Amino acid sequence: MEAIPIILFCEKGERISCKSGMETFPCEVERSKIKNGHVLIFSKHTTCGILIQEAERGLNVDILTRIEKLIPKGTGYKHDRIDNNADSHIKTCLIGVSRIIPLINGILQLGTWQSLFLAEFDGPRARKSEKNHRASNGRMILHHDADPIKI
Amino acid sequence: MEAIPIILFCEKGERISCKSGMETFPCEVERSKIKNGHVLIFSKHTTCGILIQEAERGLNVDILTRIEKLIPKGTGYKHDRIDNNADSHIKTCLIGVSRIIPLINGILQLGTWQSLFLAEFDGPRARKSEKNHRASNGRMILHHDADPIKI
Amino acid sequence: MEAIPIILFCEKGERISCKSGMETFPCEVERSKIKNGHVLIFSKHTTCGILIQEAERGLNVDILTRIEKLIPKGTGYKHDRIDNNADSHIKTCLIGVSRIIPLINGILQLGTWQSLFLAEFDGPRARKSEKNHRASNGRMILHHDADPIKI
Repeated sequence: MEAIPIILFCEKGERISCKSGMETFPCEVERSKIKNGHVLIFSKHTTCGILIQEAERGLNVDILTRIEKLIPKGTGYKHDRIDNNADSHIKTCLIGVSRIIPLINGILQLGTWQSLFLAEFDGPRARKSEKNHRASNGRMILHHDADPIKI
Repeated sequence: MEAIPIILFCEKGERISCKSGMETFPCEVERSKIKNGHVLIFSKHTTCGILIQEAERGLNVDILTRIEKLIPKGTGYKHDRIDNNADSHIKTCLIGVSRIIPLINGILQLGTWQSLFLAEFDGPRARKSEKNHRASNGRMILHHDADPIKI
Repeated sequence: MEAIPIILFCEKGERISCKSGMETFPCEVERSKIKNGHVLIFSKHTTCGILIQEAERGLNVDILTRIEKLIPKGTGYKHDRIDNNADSHIKTCLIGVSRIIPLINGILQLGTWQSLFLAEFDGPRARKSEKNHRASNGRMILHHDADPIKI
């Protein structure tokens, strides 16, 4: 059992962004040959989370703008004395570092409008996440991939 | 392996509401004969989430009122030009589209005051969710139900 | 299959606090001999949640302070007529009552800066949670512990 570390690049230099995981993620699930199980997408970071939402550019901006309004950067946080990103941590607390998706007969059970995102709150950075399948026989799946995947 | 689609009706016409899943949900788990596993309740939508909270009518109102205050409808969201419900999407980001409950010796491990809810942020609508058990042998369970279930 | 109830003490009398679970949690996972699976940490309460975040004292204060600002105590909530803690329930809705962590080759897949916390919003109280492993063969694990564990 291994997990695939996936390197997530935030290419455009934004501090806060939503990066889609849909280009590579479903392909990998297919490649794994697993048919039934729960797929856990887990971020190993404390300043970026995982989201399931509609893939609409305007909405992505709305989500980030509203979260920024609720938890603005630099309003006298104690943690900012150590590392100037307390707001990024708090944003991640609200969104959460994982999502789990049912897999049935080889098909990810995302709804019509659901897409997977990395919600980056302290970019631009390269991020690693782990994606684990649990197969129909209960094993976790060795999920190799030669190259880091850009999503 | 199949999942049961559950149709969730929002009968009273509110845009925002909490609908209990406790009338039918534990019965179905019992009917499945599964004794041990993790039960995943997953909403396939982007404008309604899943909640575990106390079933107290006043509290339900408090939760929805406070979420509305944090993420008010119609304050110039970009997505509102396409579909007038950006706030419903953002609310769903904060609540999340799934919850997972441990099942031990046939008993759902909800605490005394914990109940399951659909948190509807763009009703009234009929909603489908999927409920998957993973049994003690690791299989996901074929969980049939003849009729859509009102919760 | 059993779960270990873990008693979480909030010793210092704060109403709102972050209690680390890292002193005992990884030891228990090791003791269970399970090598691969998903570890679910589930709070059976409606006024405390589970968090994965960085273990930095100042940041803990920042998180709690900001959540208090978003959902202040006692602003005319209906539930306060019954039990004076509506804000604690709403805070718990946003944080969530569970987190799930991948376990691979016996090692919890937490990132370098990730730690597990109980986010207490209505303390000081003794809290029970359940910790369930699902092993590589799909069973949930009997996870005995003679004594309640302080974390």
